[in-house]
Amino acid sequence: MSFRATVLTLYPEMFPGHLGLSLAGRALAVGAWSLETVQIRDFAQDKHRSVDDTPAGGGAGMVMRADVLARAIDSAAPEDDPRPRLLMSPRGAPLTQARVRALASGPGAVIVCGRFEGVDQRVIEARSLEEVSIGDYILSGGEPAALVLLDAVVRLLPGVMGNESSGTEESFENGLLEHPHYTRPQLFEGREIPAVLTSGNHKKIAEWRRAEAERLTRERRPDLWARYEKAGEAE
Amino acid sequence: MSFRATVLTLYPEMFPGHLGLSLAGRALAVGAWSLETVQIRDFAQDKHRSVDDTPAGGGAGMVMRADVLARAIDSAAPEDDPRPRLLMSPRGAPLTQARVRALASGPGAVIVCGRFEGVDQRVIEARSLEEVSIGDYILSGGEPAALVLLDAVVRLLPGVMGNESSGTEESFENGLLEHPHYTRPQLFEGREIPAVLTSGNHKKIAEWRRAEAERLTRERRPDLWARYEKAGEAE
Repeated sequence: MSFRATVLTLYPEMFPGHLGLSLAGRALAVGAWSLETVQIRDFAQDKHRSVDDTPAGGGAGMVMRADVLARAIDSAAPEDDPRPRLLMSPRGAPLTQARVRALASGPGAVIVCGRFEGVDQRVIEARSLEEVSIGDYILSGGEPAALVLLDAVVRLLPGVMGNESSGTEESFENGLLEHPHYTRPQLFEGREIPAVLTSGNHKKIAEWRRAEAERLTRERRPDLWARYEKAGEAE
Repeated sequence: MSFRATVLTLYPEMFPGHLGLSLAGRALAVGAWSLETVQIRDFAQDKHRSVDDTPAGGGAGMVMRADVLARAIDSAAPEDDPRPRLLMSPRGAPLTQARVRALASGPGAVIVCGRFEGVDQRVIEARSLEEVSIGDYILSGGEPAALVLLDAVVRLLPGVMGNESSGTEESFENGLLEHPHYTRPQLFEGREIPAVLTSGNHKKIAEWRRAEAERLTRERRPDLWARYEKAGEAE
């Protein structure tokens, strides 16, 4: 069984988007993964097909209704569906490469895209939605976040990446940011490729890359660096 | 002058993508912002139109060439172009709502989308590219990240959001995750809307929301909570 994604959204026309092109698109075309969209509005039952209503307690914006969304979820993913149910939300757990890797090794994902101010809390609880955040900023809705999450997952699926990227030695896979890269030409606007990289000494090259990765992480991401040092001590 | 985005990419067909729909799409159609793509490959000069080459020092994957990318950048954004030059990269500074807000109040952005293993370090330095990361995970390329960054920015541009969202009281704007939301129906699968929200007591409602936002942030994001507490002490 290949990875199966079901996306619940008010904007099914946003999918597959960039996932229909390049590596992800070729993998979709050959069935290495599948993508289905569900229009949440199809599960509205009043004559205006309302999916949202004003927030209880007042305030700006609109809130997505629990009952409509619950019907959409139940239709897309019956109770025995083994796939995790994700809600893209800035209140969620920050997405990590480890979570991406876990999703990629599983059967797929049911992804709910919120819009408006948010989603009624009761459907999050009643349907055990796992809130996932792709970063500490606010988007127009869950759709761009779902596309990013799927892009990260799909590139790890068997047979998708080919030779374009290694999947190893990359940022976050070893807890460090990645070292700088260089390629031809040897001289660019008076700037040389660091001599060690063209020395042919593989041990020195590996040491240089490791040191650069550590330096970059220390300088740019003290949060990752602290975790990295702690993990090293625990070993 | 409205916000002007120029995206340098090997996949111009990925744009505007979801930014051509919904709020961002309507804003694009009426000229509240503009989006131009530049095909990096048009600036390759050899007969194979190569944009990448093998990494100096060996290893898997390919690296985007400094010379080709520099020509593309110089063509899209002459030296006196006041817009920030961003490179979407997992090694960059994590994108925050504050950075999004700063970008939205500026003239626009020139956004470089890397592919393959990465971009030659020398063009990052020579063209003063600001590396920006949308999160601690690896994407197939910079394009999904650029779409997310632009989505976050565009919704803050004057006249874009209308009444669909408030732009205030949202996650991160005050350093806290957002409180839970509720809307009709009053009863959903045996679950009531919390009584305080239907009490009509605006002071109590505001207090409840604040307390819930603080509780959620403390439980889910100790990192944000620590920063929030520190900011409070400094006041």
